[in-house]
Amino acid sequence: MTEFAYVGKRLTKPDIYGKVTGEAKYTDDMTVPSMVEGRILASPHAHARILRIDTSKAAALPGVLCVLTHKDCPDSRFSRSTMAEALPEFAFTGERQDQYILTDKARYVGDWIAAVAAEDIYTAEAALELIEVEYELLPMILDPHKALEPGAPSVHDDVAGNIAFEMDHPFNSGDVDRAFAEAEAVVEFTGVNSRQKHLHLETDIAIAYHESDGRLVIISPSQGPHLAKKHLTKRVFPDLSDGDIRWLSPTIGGGFGARLALGVEPVAVLLARACKRPVRVTTTREEDFSGYSSRTDQHQTIRVAANKDGKLLAIEQIIVADSGAYLSHSATTATVNMQKTLGVLKCDNIRGHLTVAYTNTPTTSGFRGYGNPEGAFVFQQALDRLAEKIGMDPMEFRLKNLKVPGDPSCFVPVPLEHTKLEECIHLAAEKIGYKDKWQGWGVAKPGRYKRGIGMSVLTHASGAGGFLLEHSSCVMKVLSDGALNLIVSPCEMGQGIIGALAQVAAESSGLRYEQIRVSTGDTDVTMFDIGSHASRSMLVIGNAVAAAGVKIKEQIRDRAVALFAEHQVRVTPDQIEVRAGRITSDAAPGVAFDVAQVAYAAIYDFGSGGSQLNASGSYLSTSHHPNHQAAFAEVEVDTETGLVTVLNYVSAHDIGRAINPLLVEAQMEGSLVQGIGFALTEDFVIDPDTGRVLSDSLLTYRLPTTMDVPDMAHLLVEDPLEAGPFGAKGCGEAGLVNPAPAIANAIYDAIGVRIHSLPMAADKVLWALRHGEGAAPGGSRVSGQYL
Amino acid sequence: MTEFAYVGKRLTKPDIYGKVTGEAKYTDDMTVPSMVEGRILASPHAHARILRIDTSKAAALPGVLCVLTHKDCPDSRFSRSTMAEALPEFAFTGERQDQYILTDKARYVGDWIAAVAAEDIYTAEAALELIEVEYELLPMILDPHKALEPGAPSVHDDVAGNIAFEMDHPFNSGDVDRAFAEAEAVVEFTGVNSRQKHLHLETDIAIAYHESDGRLVIISPSQGPHLAKKHLTKRVFPDLSDGDIRWLSPTIGGGFGARLALGVEPVAVLLARACKRPVRVTTTREEDFSGYSSRTDQHQTIRVAANKDGKLLAIEQIIVADSGAYLSHSATTATVNMQKTLGVLKCDNIRGHLTVAYTNTPTTSGFRGYGNPEGAFVFQQALDRLAEKIGMDPMEFRLKNLKVPGDPSCFVPVPLEHTKLEECIHLAAEKIGYKDKWQGWGVAKPGRYKRGIGMSVLTHASGAGGFLLEHSSCVMKVLSDGALNLIVSPCEMGQGIIGALAQVAAESSGLRYEQIRVSTGDTDVTMFDIGSHASRSMLVIGNAVAAAGVKIKEQIRDRAVALFAEHQVRVTPDQIEVRAGRITSDAAPGVAFDVAQVAYAAIYDFGSGGSQLNASGSYLSTSHHPNHQAAFAEVEVDTETGLVTVLNYVSAHDIGRAINPLLVEAQMEGSLVQGIGFALTEDFVIDPDTGRVLSDSLLTYRLPTTMDVPDMAHLLVEDPLEAGPFGAKGCGEAGLVNPAPAIANAIYDAIGVRIHSLPMAADKVLWALRHGEGAAPGGSRVSGQYL
Repeated sequence: MTEFAYVGKRLTKPDIYGKVTGEAKYTDDMTVPSMVEGRILASPHAHARILRIDTSKAAALPGVLCVLTHKDCPDSRFSRSTMAEALPEFAFTGERQDQYILTDKARYVGDWIAAVAAEDIYTAEAALELIEVEYELLPMILDPHKALEPGAPSVHDDVAGNIAFEMDHPFNSGDVDRAFAEAEAVVEFTGVNSRQKHLHLETDIAIAYHESDGRLVIISPSQGPHLAKKHLTKRVFPDLSDGDIRWLSPTIGGGFGARLALGVEPVAVLLARACKRPVRVTTTREEDFSGYSSRTDQHQTIRVAANKDGKLLAIEQIIVADSGAYLSHSATTATVNMQKTLGVLKCDNIRGHLTVAYTNTPTTSGFRGYGNPEGAFVFQQALDRLAEKIGMDPMEFRLKNLKVPGDPSCFVPVPLEHTKLEECIHLAAEKIGYKDKWQGWGVAKPGRYKRGIGMSVLTHASGAGGFLLEHSSCVMKVLSDGALNLIVSPCEMGQGIIGALAQVAAESSGLRYEQIRVSTGDTDVTMFDIGSHASRSMLVIGNAVAAAGVKIKEQIRDRAVALFAEHQVRVTPDQIEVRAGRITSDAAPGVAFDVAQVAYAAIYDFGSGGSQLNASGSYLSTSHHPNHQAAFAEVEVDTETGLVTVLNYVSAHDIGRAINPLLVEAQMEGSLVQGIGFALTEDFVIDPDTGRVLSDSLLTYRLPTTMDVPDMAHLLVEDPLEAGPFGAKGCGEAGLVNPAPAIANAIYDAIGVRIHSLPMAADKVLWALRHGEGAAPGGSRVSGQYL
Repeated sequence: MTEFAYVGKRLTKPDIYGKVTGEAKYTDDMTVPSMVEGRILASPHAHARILRIDTSKAAALPGVLCVLTHKDCPDSRFSRSTMAEALPEFAFTGERQDQYILTDKARYVGDWIAAVAAEDIYTAEAALELIEVEYELLPMILDPHKALEPGAPSVHDDVAGNIAFEMDHPFNSGDVDRAFAEAEAVVEFTGVNSRQKHLHLETDIAIAYHESDGRLVIISPSQGPHLAKKHLTKRVFPDLSDGDIRWLSPTIGGGFGARLALGVEPVAVLLARACKRPVRVTTTREEDFSGYSSRTDQHQTIRVAANKDGKLLAIEQIIVADSGAYLSHSATTATVNMQKTLGVLKCDNIRGHLTVAYTNTPTTSGFRGYGNPEGAFVFQQALDRLAEKIGMDPMEFRLKNLKVPGDPSCFVPVPLEHTKLEECIHLAAEKIGYKDKWQGWGVAKPGRYKRGIGMSVLTHASGAGGFLLEHSSCVMKVLSDGALNLIVSPCEMGQGIIGALAQVAAESSGLRYEQIRVSTGDTDVTMFDIGSHASRSMLVIGNAVAAAGVKIKEQIRDRAVALFAEHQVRVTPDQIEVRAGRITSDAAPGVAFDVAQVAYAAIYDFGSGGSQLNASGSYLSTSHHPNHQAAFAEVEVDTETGLVTVLNYVSAHDIGRAINPLLVEAQMEGSLVQGIGFALTEDFVIDPDTGRVLSDSLLTYRLPTTMDVPDMAHLLVEDPLEAGPFGAKGCGEAGLVNPAPAIANAIYDAIGVRIHSLPMAADKVLWALRHGEGAAPGGSRVSGQYL
């Protein structure tokens, strides 16, 4: 194997400097001359029709430029989800255009009723208070199961029974009923996840203005500005088309999936059109909580069946997902849940069904992991329960049911091309000392503080090729000193993709990493890309970058032939090596050139110049190239308080190749902490009497702190994926999938009680210790309703 | 001939909206967080050594961040001229690195001694006054002829005799002495031009700062940022290389050649390095006058010889150019003067010699026309005098000596490929009514107000291919709606090049002009280009754009085959026409597609997508592709005041093809007004006692106003140049060449007296009317020194 110059090296990511010094510029740091401030009026009612809305007093307030309501909106419907624009138009019907810029019927507390633009934010907020709205209160429905019952109030007048979306798993296969009937062991497990909040540090914000020639500019943090443009032009403002908008994405203060949806951009555009001034629309943290962005709560009942020898025979998954008031990503996250849950292990008989219900609660969205953490929390507990029933070690049970290459992947029609999940399990088990720590089923632990160990395994996509349009293009050019400008459109939201792509660019082109300059964030100069999500960036964008880099290297080789000739050495391009900025050839020992010689000559030499080295690269991924991970958690439960402490966590990831192990590990570390919050503390609570979000600040919604971070190890199993750039698979989301189920299984190992809903907070664990496991499924989001 | 969709159309240039609404952002509109203000201390002495410089009081002023002098500068020498970086290293020796960031010896009043950065500009200016400098005054030399005399004080200690540059015309040819000896008529004419000021509305300015990763960003209006980067890294800060600098050029407030030189950028970088803060360095209008940017005054003696039948036998041109204190563009403008003056007409025996002298006056620079207006003022009067001597109509004389294709061009080794100068002369003559107005030599006009008519002809380059590295590259990509992002690096300084390039892009690609979006002004995303100057942009950049556009059209054609096939029409790509956004084929009447269908599919279709339409284009011009022009001026001279009024002006330009006639005419109109100022009013006056610039404001330096603009017509002779994009030649500079000589010849026709120096201001004309023509050459820049 070739030793790489940069791939596999733990290099510092270039975006770090601006972030630690505070010099990085976020959207809120941007100023546009004569910009005014926009604010949005939210409904105080969960379900109410607007009978009358009087904006005259607000409009008369000095400093107010315009006050807009639903009457001022184009007659357009859209879905916040921009990712849907990368769905093939023939394939997926889970795309519902049910969203309004400003609505005439509030469907949740926080729904957008009116918008104001004023010279300053204080005036804008004062104006909001002067808007008089007469509401007709409607019966509200907050629970998805109740929403689906006959006679429930309709969240959307045109949607019968509040069914936002319903489908059978497209890859149902085998004879599930017969398998269950004939199986030696069957268990059922119900559970639900909480509405985890993304809690990107930067709340939703957008600036919109028109250039002097009339073109629209949007400055906004987006995980996929090219798709956001498409959605905005196709659905929201159909008088515009792709070229009419320039989308600028400055530094992004976190994404985690929340930026895969239009936020306040339509309102900002509407205000900028109305008042003919640049408008910045901002939101507060409280509005972010009561807004439209959280993980979808997916109520699941999973049945699994096995023979006594541990062969997994059947899986059935029934999902009722609660989209909240509008559909957004709910249908697709539930779909992905089914794919991953039903697809992670080898099983011939699988069946899934999902229903997405509208409720009068805030709209949910896509979130890192995108259905997979939701499913794993329930499924991996069901697996453990099944293993217990047949008396088998849970690790052995999983090892017995691993897929091997050639088996159907989680996209069933596509054969699994590559998996190292078995190696991952063994590696992580050894690292955490599983054999010593796992004492068998039903072993009661002594004392107040009880320890337990649990595990979970996953498969996740490296981009959704075959399902989404996994297309990325990029362009690059080489400067006279051998520096390379890479112009490309990933979303650098902290994950380090810019640095990793620079490593791919340097490795593939043969130029120096230190001289790679990545330009991003301007749709006028970056080529098409569908954004950073679905653990796709390295595989898809990385392949596009590598394709361009290889062309650059070819150009250097072709031109270097003449350089060798000047030294009386005759070499062919394929005999020339270009690496880390040096040009050498085995055919000419001792002769070496700097790439700057070729790069300079391409630009400046009268003889050979006139064609600056440059290339574009494109990649269309047609498969999902799964990555895999096994993880083990060791916990300690204080049986007097219910407090769960994660002591140790080890994951091993089937990464294909880590372009930068430092960044991969950082992804795993960050997502573990996010996963611990998901598992133990993050509780999105809605008042059952009003529909209002009670956990609307970081005081009432508890994020993990550094004190909650356990000992950890994240191991990488590297075996190159043929389709990956230098063999890489994705890794951005996987780390958030295993923590909750591994911790849940460890809690059971510690205390012998299973928790069915997230978060597994202290009071809930204490309740379960005292009352045993409840029977009814349900979330924790309605305060006090525990299982 | 194909009818074009956009080429040749009088379309509105896209940059106009921002300029007329005031929304366009100039460098001074840019803000960088924590930016401080930089100001420069200028020498009050024309020639003085700094014995002691004490910055302690200035540095101690609260709010001052740093005070720098020559002691803080890197030991580097540079030439302000950035264009020199596009000269072949083997070819031209007229490049002298004689410039310092801050000097320890003042060489003119205004030379840069020290620089300050402070929290605000008032503090910065106060600090300048606190810098204590002890000067040793040295004898100064203000006149270039005296500077070349033995024993003259040396402006540069290491340059003997103040000879900054000296050379024979490289294309001297024939036997000049014999031709003069044998000729039937010989005349000599001496003359000198004034130091015309560029007077771009935006005075010199630069912002420099370091990004958090240490990379340097420069925001500054430049006519050639890529070359400016090269000059800055190669000569000024050799610790930097190309990729270490990002150069941003916002909207540019006029250039005219002044932006082809480094201005305050090195000082801004030095300050930003020293105080570790972003620094903006600004200059005032007074500093612009006393600074380093004006046309070079070129003192010329021209001898011409002819036979009585009007055959031009010999030309000899002796130039003494005054560079001022530093060389900058003086040597190259004098060289271009010789090329154009000795090359405009057919003549077998030519000889030129130039000497560039250092003086203790402000540094001169390159200016629209770049030597050609300087030469034409003298040469076209010499021609008229020769025609008078042989009794021939001056138009007929010129017509008798026109070059035809195949004759040597003004770059003698390159044959002239194309000229329509003869047509231009006839067309312009007819338009102005020359035959009726020209009454013959020596016809005295009656009355106080005397009218006269005069003419001039020129050749000018369309880029300096063969002499300069005329290389441009660009990249373009097509959006899903068929819009095109063209990313390219011309300098839009008002001439409309962005609009014209958009027309070329639309025509060559087949896309719609209205959907072309041009991105420029950021060296990180634009490919290499040597800047906008030498009337090169349309020919060189236009060819690069057309090359990329043609590739786009090919991609559209290739992909459209399948579209036709869907309509059961089998066509080959070459049967498909793409024009103005529509795809048609003669082979399929009635079938048409929008380009958006192909563009969308390239991005979004699962089947054919994955490769957004994109292309790069490069062009290296290896010839200078001359454009030509004839012009006639009709003037009225008030013999009691000397005031010259231009009544009517007609030019006819050999443009090849006008991509946008509106823009070409606007170039001619603007340059005519600038030429009238050059001819009649713009007087750069230096105090002979102190070396100080006396004409240092727009009150004392008289620009033409709307009241000075004559009736005018600018006619275009269109006959496509094979090498031009759609046949276009350049046109940016030519319009400034003919006004002064045509007006001078018209003045002679009116009053029978020739003026030998510019400007031909009222007092000078009156002096000449009363005293007759003087014998000694000399400029008007030393106040009161008239010929």
